Amino acid sequence: MGSWTRPTCKCCISRAVEPLVALELIENINIETKQWLMDRIQTEKIVGDNINEFLSLAEREFIILHTLDNIKVVDEKYIPGYPTQTLYPGEAIFNRLRKSKILHTFYPLHDEKMLTDLGNCWHSHRNLRLQPIDSIYRYFGGSVALYFSFLEYFTCSLMPMATFGTVVIALSMDTIDKCILFSLLNMIWSTVVMELWKRHSFVLSYSWGTMQMNSQFEEPRGDYKGPMGTNPITRRYQPYYPAWKRKVKIWLVSVPILCLFLGFSLSGVFVFFRVEAWIKAYHSENDGCWACALYLPSVLHTLYVTSMNVLYKTIAKVLTEWENHRLETSFQNHLTIKVMVFRFVNCFAALFYISFFLQDLELLRKELASLLVLTQIINQLIELLVPYLHKTLIGKGAVLKKTMMENAPEIDKIKSQGQMPTFPGLFDEYMELFVQFGYVSLFSCIYPLTAVLVVVNNIAEIRMDALKLCHLFRKPFISPAANIGVWQTAFEMIGFLSVITNCFLISISPQVEEYCAENNITSKNVLIWTVGVEHALLAIKIILAFSIPDIPQWVKLRIDRVEYQSLQALKHKLAEVDNGHSRVTEEKEKRSDGITMSDSKESSLHASNSQLNLL
Amino acid sequence: MGSWTRPTCKCCISRAVEPLVALELIENINIETKQWLMDRIQTEKIVGDNINEFLSLAEREFIILHTLDNIKVVDEKYIPGYPTQTLYPGEAIFNRLRKSKILHTFYPLHDEKMLTDLGNCWHSHRNLRLQPIDSIYRYFGGSVALYFSFLEYFTCSLMPMATFGTVVIALSMDTIDKCILFSLLNMIWSTVVMELWKRHSFVLSYSWGTMQMNSQFEEPRGDYKGPMGTNPITRRYQPYYPAWKRKVKIWLVSVPILCLFLGFSLSGVFVFFRVEAWIKAYHSENDGCWACALYLPSVLHTLYVTSMNVLYKTIAKVLTEWENHRLETSFQNHLTIKVMVFRFVNCFAALFYISFFLQDLELLRKELASLLVLTQIINQLIELLVPYLHKTLIGKGAVLKKTMMENAPEIDKIKSQGQMPTFPGLFDEYMELFVQFGYVSLFSCIYPLTAVLVVVNNIAEIRMDALKLCHLFRKPFISPAANIGVWQTAFEMIGFLSVITNCFLISISPQVEEYCAENNITSKNVLIWTVGVEHALLAIKIILAFSIPDIPQWVKLRIDRVEYQSLQALKHKLAEVDNGHSRVTEEKEKRSDGITMSDSKESSLHASNSQLNLL
Repeated sequence: MGSWTRPTCKCCISRAVEPLVALELIENINIETKQWLMDRIQTEKIVGDNINEFLSLAEREFIILHTLDNIKVVDEKYIPGYPTQTLYPGEAIFNRLRKSKILHTFYPLHDEKMLTDLGNCWHSHRNLRLQPIDSIYRYFGGSVALYFSFLEYFTCSLMPMATFGTVVIALSMDTIDKCILFSLLNMIWSTVVMELWKRHSFVLSYSWGTMQMNSQFEEPRGDYKGPMGTNPITRRYQPYYPAWKRKVKIWLVSVPILCLFLGFSLSGVFVFFRVEAWIKAYHSENDGCWACALYLPSVLHTLYVTSMNVLYKTIAKVLTEWENHRLETSFQNHLTIKVMVFRFVNCFAALFYISFFLQDLELLRKELASLLVLTQIINQLIELLVPYLHKTLIGKGAVLKKTMMENAPEIDKIKSQGQMPTFPGLFDEYMELFVQFGYVSLFSCIYPLTAVLVVVNNIAEIRMDALKLCHLFRKPFISPAANIGVWQTAFEMIGFLSVITNCFLISISPQVEEYCAENNITSKNVLIWTVGVEHALLAIKIILAFSIPDIPQWVKLRIDRVEYQSLQALKHKLAEVDNGHSRVTEEKEKRSDGITMSDSKESSLHASNSQLNLL
Repeated sequence: MGSWTRPTCKCCISRAVEPLVALELIENINIETKQWLMDRIQTEKIVGDNINEFLSLAEREFIILHTLDNIKVVDEKYIPGYPTQTLYPGEAIFNRLRKSKILHTFYPLHDEKMLTDLGNCWHSHRNLRLQPIDSIYRYFGGSVALYFSFLEYFTCSLMPMATFGTVVIALSMDTIDKCILFSLLNMIWSTVVMELWKRHSFVLSYSWGTMQMNSQFEEPRGDYKGPMGTNPITRRYQPYYPAWKRKVKIWLVSVPILCLFLGFSLSGVFVFFRVEAWIKAYHSENDGCWACALYLPSVLHTLYVTSMNVLYKTIAKVLTEWENHRLETSFQNHLTIKVMVFRFVNCFAALFYISFFLQDLELLRKELASLLVLTQIINQLIELLVPYLHKTLIGKGAVLKKTMMENAPEIDKIKSQGQMPTFPGLFDEYMELFVQFGYVSLFSCIYPLTAVLVVVNNIAEIRMDALKLCHLFRKPFISPAANIGVWQTAFEMIGFLSVITNCFLISISPQVEEYCAENNITSKNVLIWTVGVEHALLAIKIILAFSIPDIPQWVKLRIDRVEYQSLQALKHKLAEVDNGHSRVTEEKEKRSDGITMSDSKESSLHASNSQLNLL
């Protein structure tokens, strides 16, 4: 590591400069390159610090990221100092430097005072209380705040189910009898929870001002590559990778590989049930020896499921990278859908097999319990241990290096933040919630402790995730977010599936079977009724989803009011312009651009002086 | 009728004035009122006729309607000449005059040359050929053109089904054997047709420039009433009817009445099957006498269904009027949903009963055929006869009155247009297509002639609707429309239902029953498989609907290009402004209005002269 200089600033010499973002360049960087880079950064507009009053820390950092990402090549033919690294006009400089490994990393910095304050009312708070979501938004940004808000909301919404489950368990041990009641509760719960969350997240994004996010013209991803061509939208000469090639890759490679892994997962289920049956038979033959071996298949299967999850996620990342998506949002969506489909099948295949084919409620309960406990323990361990170990190991390395640095404490702090692992994103966190939501709403009717276990896990999860984000990872750049995006759809899909599974579980429940046996109802008629009720419930669910407004009334009213006011302001402005020019030929840019028909006021009014007035 | 004056015009004395819209006032109108009205109209901006180059006839007429509807009361306390008719500031004058019956009617006028030209390449054209949709758009406006385009599209899309059906009928008479094949075809057809229509209607509205229609701040309906109050959005003092009262009316009155009528409809089905069974028994007992009586229940039931349709529609109109919707769009949506739900149940209840409970494919086929033929004949007769009779009867009356008028031919023409019946809207036309779409996609697998009958009916329908619109009705004001709105959803719902009915019809088809009998498969297992396949198909349909893009690629590209260009133009403008003021404090109107976070460029950039650059 080379020489360190204190941050200096041209525009505000009198005041101390608060560093927001750090750029780490390679050690032996050409001085010419550094000078060029600094010149380019300094030509960007620097506005006075009164934006601090309007923008939160996370927003300011995001704006810096956005500004730096938008510094474009003007007429440089190559990176100054590196003649082999050619540039094209309009190329984003920071992306290029990252690709050429000249720019190591690039990260926002923690504000220690704010971080301590935030921690005090968040993860370090002794009592259970609601999280300071607005402070999280200001410090970390939109999507992180939305995640924690959703986690809290989800946990709170499980409380009634957990209480009810505990009461039932406490009063009587035979819970399969309560199956019908729990099924109905689950169906209602999964519908209501997601509808209310949609409204709640709307209120959040309204209060943060992030309601309308438009990513249409966002910059291409850093790793987007392709032969030089003319972009059909901007008509610029830049790397252009045709969409049909991407589609071919998706349908001919990514989808088959997904199917292959789904096959592995399903054969895992098949092998598990074979081995389980074999061990059971062996155990009953040999009369009780190796009792612990009974649990072996379950444990092995859980390990298999977990390792397949990790393996497929790695492969999905490589595949999605190779699909060469132009925009970050499109990359994220494709990755999320791939992994979500696989993980859903991988985590739930065994449960679906037990309930729909074996129709063995006792086994289902046992399997659900073991999955729930084991996966939660494994997840928590992985989540906590990996970054902790990383920190400890790297931390030791850093101490060794420290001796070589001059001891400017503020620069040491910044460097130590750079040595932390990068934040892996919220993908795994949401995926965990997704699987939990599945356990609760699809199958929890036969194991009422599910909700209790999930609640306990999530209360720990909130604190652990907060701790990790504050102290174990480098601070991430977080873009403003309007909602939880594709996850909302995913959770709603689980809601629809929950109607199917719960109806089916009711139809095979002991009470229904007893009732049918008493009243001589054939199992075919039970099935017809089940299917009929299921379709009716699905229809009601769709109607409910349509008829509950996504935006709360009071927010809608305020938005309408603002829109009305801006429309009025526009009208006044237009009227002023009209008075200026006595006769403006308003042109309708209709056919040429397809934009909305303007609300033009002109009309050939010709009033006649008769009872039948002609216009 | 009083005195007639030729149209005169202040602004263009040299040229002949082309009258576009006629206003008909009451006969004994106060001269003061007329003068006031004319003054108010003339103060509206009158722009030169070069708008004719940019706007079509329909668009110009709509703009006049919009301008007149937006003439507001300024400081008048009552209608001049009618001191009892009080006004409030901001009240729309034309609505008020219509309510007070001072303004009789208010209609656009036909352009005879254009109408003849349009007719020549439309309904008067001898050969079967595509309709001149763009000319229809220019002459009649958006929603009419969309209706005819949809009617044509729907008819064309039925052609392959009709051809296939005819071939099957021609080759073998026993069509129930082909049930599986037809079911599969129906499911694919109903999905593909509506997805492609969505794309096609997008292209149409793109080429017309009506893509983004915003009705948020449209004027209240003419019949909207309520006590004076402050509008929470505009803060104006005007009639204000709280939304909760409307909701109470809807849920406590409209919905129960709908349910009551659904009850009538279902009991009609019940009585029908009772009578049918009774007559059949009587017929077989008395051995063949009164053979024609066998058809009596079907005919009576069809008449009952038709009259219930008419009755409920009248009641629904009254109810929706009474619900007091503020906006015309909201009124139309509520009316459409009410009538659609009832008509769906009323028209399809018997067919669902036969297929799901009686499981009698022969009876289903007979009933479908009789419904199809009878309802189409009745509909065509009602549609054609009623306006024709109206015209003939009124026409005679007009001849008598004619002698009393001075013979100014252009004014006679305008008056005769005023005596035509008003255009009833496209509601019934869409409803007819909705029911046809239902017959074809839900049940046509057991009666392959369905598609043929519908095609023949629709070819006649296109010409008859065109004739009616051109010559039997007063020309309507048609607002620009972006798509077929709620009907798109309704047709897609039928698509989903078609999966359910077709899967079920396949499972009770003779081939499947034969196969099961041969292979010893129980009917319960058949049902399980049916339900499984049905759920899988529904899932595939949902995935397809999501993955087929609603906007064709080339349209998307052009829209993006225009949006990009306007963004670039805005940036240049902003840069100019920036150069003017050396240091602009850009403010973020975030918390105050909830509008999107501005893409502000400011940032506190502080570059240091070191390897670790601090921003």
